[in-house]
Amino acid sequence: MTTLSTLCSKIHVPGVGVAAAARDHLDALTKPPGSLGRLEELAVRLVALRGAPPRVEQPVVFTFAADHGVVAEGVSAYPASVTAQMVENFLRGGAAVNVLARQAGARVIVADFGVAGPVGGADELVRCALGPGTANIADGPAMTRAQAERAVEAGARLAERAVDDGADLLITGEMGIGNTTAASAITALFTGQPPAAVTGRGTGLDAQGWQRKVEVVERVLAVNRPDPLDGLDVLASVGGFEIAGLVGVILAGAARRVPVALDGFIATAAALVAAALCPAAVHAMLAAHRSAEPGHDVALRHLGLAPYLDLGLRLGEGTGAVLFVHVARAAARIYTEMATFKAAGVDGPA
Amino acid sequence: MTTLSTLCSKIHVPGVGVAAAARDHLDALTKPPGSLGRLEELAVRLVALRGAPPRVEQPVVFTFAADHGVVAEGVSAYPASVTAQMVENFLRGGAAVNVLARQAGARVIVADFGVAGPVGGADELVRCALGPGTANIADGPAMTRAQAERAVEAGARLAERAVDDGADLLITGEMGIGNTTAASAITALFTGQPPAAVTGRGTGLDAQGWQRKVEVVERVLAVNRPDPLDGLDVLASVGGFEIAGLVGVILAGAARRVPVALDGFIATAAALVAAALCPAAVHAMLAAHRSAEPGHDVALRHLGLAPYLDLGLRLGEGTGAVLFVHVARAAARIYTEMATFKAAGVDGPA
Repeated sequence: MTTLSTLCSKIHVPGVGVAAAARDHLDALTKPPGSLGRLEELAVRLVALRGAPPRVEQPVVFTFAADHGVVAEGVSAYPASVTAQMVENFLRGGAAVNVLARQAGARVIVADFGVAGPVGGADELVRCALGPGTANIADGPAMTRAQAERAVEAGARLAERAVDDGADLLITGEMGIGNTTAASAITALFTGQPPAAVTGRGTGLDAQGWQRKVEVVERVLAVNRPDPLDGLDVLASVGGFEIAGLVGVILAGAARRVPVALDGFIATAAALVAAALCPAAVHAMLAAHRSAEPGHDVALRHLGLAPYLDLGLRLGEGTGAVLFVHVARAAARIYTEMATFKAAGVDGPA
Repeated sequence: MTTLSTLCSKIHVPGVGVAAAARDHLDALTKPPGSLGRLEELAVRLVALRGAPPRVEQPVVFTFAADHGVVAEGVSAYPASVTAQMVENFLRGGAAVNVLARQAGARVIVADFGVAGPVGGADELVRCALGPGTANIADGPAMTRAQAERAVEAGARLAERAVDDGADLLITGEMGIGNTTAASAITALFTGQPPAAVTGRGTGLDAQGWQRKVEVVERVLAVNRPDPLDGLDVLASVGGFEIAGLVGVILAGAARRVPVALDGFIATAAALVAAALCPAAVHAMLAAHRSAEPGHDVALRHLGLAPYLDLGLRLGEGTGAVLFVHVARAAARIYTEMATFKAAGVDGPA
């Protein structure tokens, strides 16, 4: 039985000796030391976390979906019906995350953590709904503390099952009309930044829509006053069911020493919660990319993570993190497949 | 018969109508407009160049090698013997570019454009040597104008053959101890920047070594006084045989409307020459990444190209451009494989 407290008890900071040995190995390969830049830094992180040569051959994307009561406040350019419709699109393989996952050889696990509308048939949909979307966080808490805990544990179980099946990179994705508002509230609470600094245009608000969204986030924070030192309190008060599920994926990855690629703003809000619950979990987190949402950079800085890609993406679903699979795989293969100066008979510095 | 002048006569600026239609197609796909950021911009560029839906399935890497007489001035941390040894490493598949090319499903064409030492056996080595390395550019011109022209045409022929065999993305790579010095001289000449602003530490010079290298570049420019409006004059005066070969690859790609991914500083120096010979060729150039060499960013700005990756790479060989294959392929597949709002039954903005 995976409980939140047993998960957290299994998360530790990796030892430093392995990282130093990994660094030495990279310097023995046929290239000037450090000349592969962040690929080398990434390889060292992967080795340190795993305690073994890196491997990125079986990535799994967790695209968790849920609805948000706060859409009643007019915070999104798209209607809430799109959440369920996009889940069906994921299951048919027509969304951006599907295209990119096929390219990267990644499996996509689509789970309903609380979609409001009915989601048609499809056996592959994992059903973990905690309710028909969260309550409106502009009026009160999103969910109960017990629901938050159950959602985290459900996400963790899905991740653990994937790791048991051989997953070597976990990817956080999501879909939920309105969820950038929840992510803005979470980011404001953990980083201490004002709502205007961590609120973006989401799926495409205009200037007036953005102003209204900032005011909604301000009201969310005034109505809910969770303790930022209590991660579960923040999650239950202003989070979302899919965000809670991703917290579970991140903690399970950290507990099993499997790296977790954070996608964009929503996934990184889940990472803020995970880090509040268990700070050592940050060692398992890889910031795949820097999203165009302004709050994302604020959240990444708070976590001390530097993104690998910066392509102006702001779609979510897991798209940026799936694109990053190629970078992580490159780092792993450079580490394991390149010839050494000695084996190749190449001279060192003059 | 491919001559430089016939090549240039075939290079044209793509029409704008195709780009607008490509933009419309992207906006019909199930994602908020523009939410895939630079992947969308890249897809539009690929469609505009090709005049057809994009395709990045058969990338070919051109890793051209040559030696540089200027190493006699002590400009490199590694001895010249490394050029030939690394060519052998490429042919055995042990270098970084081989590892990354296998991952990206890219063929690597290794060609000797003028390596000083003997290169062992290996049938797959393409032999295009124009001489045993260039003359020392700190004393006079690197090569004759006729040699420069022959090297460009040889590179173009290799690229044309690859395109005839189905190549849909050409990748510029190189190996040549001392070639960052030539690239610095080329970049200074075309951009008007002083040597100190476009000279880096190459394979790993210390501060004193860097200072000496800057002085050598200054001497190169004082001794050779090519006309920056005459691309072939610059190439023959301060270039390298492998750089000349890459100029041919770039021009052939532009002439055949096949995109060319520029790797780092050396490849982009070749792009500066290509753009001087035929400015419309920039439409075929994709800046794969921003290298850690300071002159690279200067050269990219001069060409008006924004890099897609920024991972602190400074190895060359084609490594950064091969890593970029995944990004280009993602852009192409997003364009061709995603569902439209209409087909997927997903609602548009409220």
